[in-house]
Amino acid sequence: MFKVNTNFLKLNESYLFSEIARKIEAFKASHPDADIIRMGIGDVTRPLAPAVVNALQKAVAEQADVATFKGYGPEQGYAFLREAVAENDYKKRGIDISPDEIFISDGAKSDTANITDILGNDNVVALTDPVYPVYLDSNIMAGRAGEKTASGAYSRIVYLPCTEANNFVPQLPQGKVDIIYLCYPNNPTGTTLDRQQLKVWVDYARCNGALIMFDSAYEAFITGDDVPHSIYEIKGAEEVAIEFRSYSKTAGFTGLRCGYTVVPKKLKAVDDNGNDVNLNRLWNRRQCTKFNGASYIAQRAAEAIYSPEGRKQINETIDYYLRNAKLLRDRLQNVGLKVWGGENAPYVWVKAPEGLSSWQFFDLLLNDYQIATTPGVGFGPAGEGYIRLTAFGSYENTLRAVERIKKLKP
Amino acid sequence: MFKVNTNFLKLNESYLFSEIARKIEAFKASHPDADIIRMGIGDVTRPLAPAVVNALQKAVAEQADVATFKGYGPEQGYAFLREAVAENDYKKRGIDISPDEIFISDGAKSDTANITDILGNDNVVALTDPVYPVYLDSNIMAGRAGEKTASGAYSRIVYLPCTEANNFVPQLPQGKVDIIYLCYPNNPTGTTLDRQQLKVWVDYARCNGALIMFDSAYEAFITGDDVPHSIYEIKGAEEVAIEFRSYSKTAGFTGLRCGYTVVPKKLKAVDDNGNDVNLNRLWNRRQCTKFNGASYIAQRAAEAIYSPEGRKQINETIDYYLRNAKLLRDRLQNVGLKVWGGENAPYVWVKAPEGLSSWQFFDLLLNDYQIATTPGVGFGPAGEGYIRLTAFGSYENTLRAVERIKKLKP
Repeated sequence: MFKVNTNFLKLNESYLFSEIARKIEAFKASHPDADIIRMGIGDVTRPLAPAVVNALQKAVAEQADVATFKGYGPEQGYAFLREAVAENDYKKRGIDISPDEIFISDGAKSDTANITDILGNDNVVALTDPVYPVYLDSNIMAGRAGEKTASGAYSRIVYLPCTEANNFVPQLPQGKVDIIYLCYPNNPTGTTLDRQQLKVWVDYARCNGALIMFDSAYEAFITGDDVPHSIYEIKGAEEVAIEFRSYSKTAGFTGLRCGYTVVPKKLKAVDDNGNDVNLNRLWNRRQCTKFNGASYIAQRAAEAIYSPEGRKQINETIDYYLRNAKLLRDRLQNVGLKVWGGENAPYVWVKAPEGLSSWQFFDLLLNDYQIATTPGVGFGPAGEGYIRLTAFGSYENTLRAVERIKKLKP
Repeated sequence: MFKVNTNFLKLNESYLFSEIARKIEAFKASHPDADIIRMGIGDVTRPLAPAVVNALQKAVAEQADVATFKGYGPEQGYAFLREAVAENDYKKRGIDISPDEIFISDGAKSDTANITDILGNDNVVALTDPVYPVYLDSNIMAGRAGEKTASGAYSRIVYLPCTEANNFVPQLPQGKVDIIYLCYPNNPTGTTLDRQQLKVWVDYARCNGALIMFDSAYEAFITGDDVPHSIYEIKGAEEVAIEFRSYSKTAGFTGLRCGYTVVPKKLKAVDDNGNDVNLNRLWNRRQCTKFNGASYIAQRAAEAIYSPEGRKQINETIDYYLRNAKLLRDRLQNVGLKVWGGENAPYVWVKAPEGLSSWQFFDLLLNDYQIATTPGVGFGPAGEGYIRLTAFGSYENTLRAVERIKKLKP
């Protein structure tokens, strides 16, 4: 009989967001009239920018005409978009990334999950804790996580706790690790690393032959000057880091699907004999074999973000969400809750009132206030005792939510 | 130092289609005025159907309005499309497949490559030869192919030759295999299996605990009554087969990106202890973790194919391509070439004139006739001595191509 990949059997029962959806559905079933404000899943709610919509309509019209129809595009993405990314997201910030180091995809979730296809299974993986579940689950599936222990932690994963005690700045691992996932501005905590703090990790990777997977999906929300937009702002990072970017939160592309991954040509790993292997070539091969390129119309839509009017429009939407984030942050602090994030990020990380677990706080907010959140423990053991709120709702709903929470006594 | 997945180093230098593109570019560089007719890569050239364009425009307008904006969709696809697929592609053919057995994706290439994520690496893989390179390369990457031998074949892959000698009908393997890839109507040969011939494989899989990966990307081109549109037309196949479908060739979606995969709930594998594991659940978990759903607008576009006018329009385009296929088939036979396919498929498989290898015939057609084809050997050792032509060009170009080939003396 053919066999399954038994690593899948080591996964937790249910993916976090599916479990939350299930709980909300169950609550709605027993309270059909409940007016639930959803501040859980990090999904945007504002419509696409007019410049993006125009680009989409134009691209659709091209696809309707035999003279301008586009079939398969390059698996790596169209030159027009790779060049726009290199110019706007990198060159304008003084970073030297060339178009052939940029791989356009259907989104950062696919890329952060698929990237380990090109890496050996013996590598030791370090994850911040709490963490975006995809990094962990994709490594469990690949067999890099080892066994699940009694505590719920996986035996071969090195956890880097980010808590109130270290002000959510992960400490360097004790032993040697091979692959380190860093997401800044952070999901779920909304916290950031400044250049000096990020440099510590680049230096560690350079000294220890490690690879940094830098997820920069929330880069557009950075307002502070000391927060790097790209890991390549740190000298030498192009030799040790892959960077993931997404248009999902930057421009409301969660339903449209487009993002990109930067694999610098200077980035090298070794084979079993210690010979250098170029990761850019390997990722190119992976994408050419297992992916057929992002949608042409989505790529034209992404290109429109880099036009002056597109940029202006998406910035207005980001400011809208940041206003929500500030509202959440301020008002939750006003009722006496401890709060992090929400300044350079669309996420607000809230400590549960004394004695409550993440899921208990989740249930309290759902049952008594009809506010759906994300329990921090869903992002890892160190997330226990926290919840995550997102600023992606409407301003009106965010206002209603903080009005409801006014009655909360921590 | 962190390590690469060394299985990647066992891959052939270059993915077939990239290599062809390189050769054509080189020819164009040295013959800037050459009028090359491209009959190589299987990409469509007709524009999207009006019903599809209307659906796209409507969906784009929805994304422009806060009241109708759609963010993240279900990873498995929207219910409206899963239900349309179940109804039109299955129920109407008397096949009982439910919407939750259908997983919408960004295309069959991703799915056929990613599907082995859920399968153990010890499984023995059987491939028809010649074969769509993605099946082989994705298994090499995962470590299931073993070592590359002197002949170019991989030590752990069981090859099922399809040649003139067996009329392109693969014979059952001598030993026991675990996973069998079948693509019918076939890419690259354009040949088909009738129900009895496909039943032989379903029966083998049922008797031997094997899994069939049935790639049905060219189903829309079937004209003969004895050719099954779905493997689930064969009794018991829902217990042994996964089916892949694509809108790429059916409706010209190569640049839009949408397809789907059917993983029946009756399909079971075993874990290391011999316990049953449900593959539908495993694939669902894989997609929820490593994929974020197909684009909403692409799914609305796919839905439009199932409307009466959409169906009529895409059928007209398929008839257009089938006319090209017939023209190629007839005229190549007229000049004395041996030809297969082109009746229930958009591909025509042509035997090279006596004494010519695939690449030699490729070079001859490119250099002397300015016709770009695909060398059969690129699809596997048994493809040596053949080339593949596609019917996806314009009728005018197809006509010009066969006029040029008139002068060929096999």
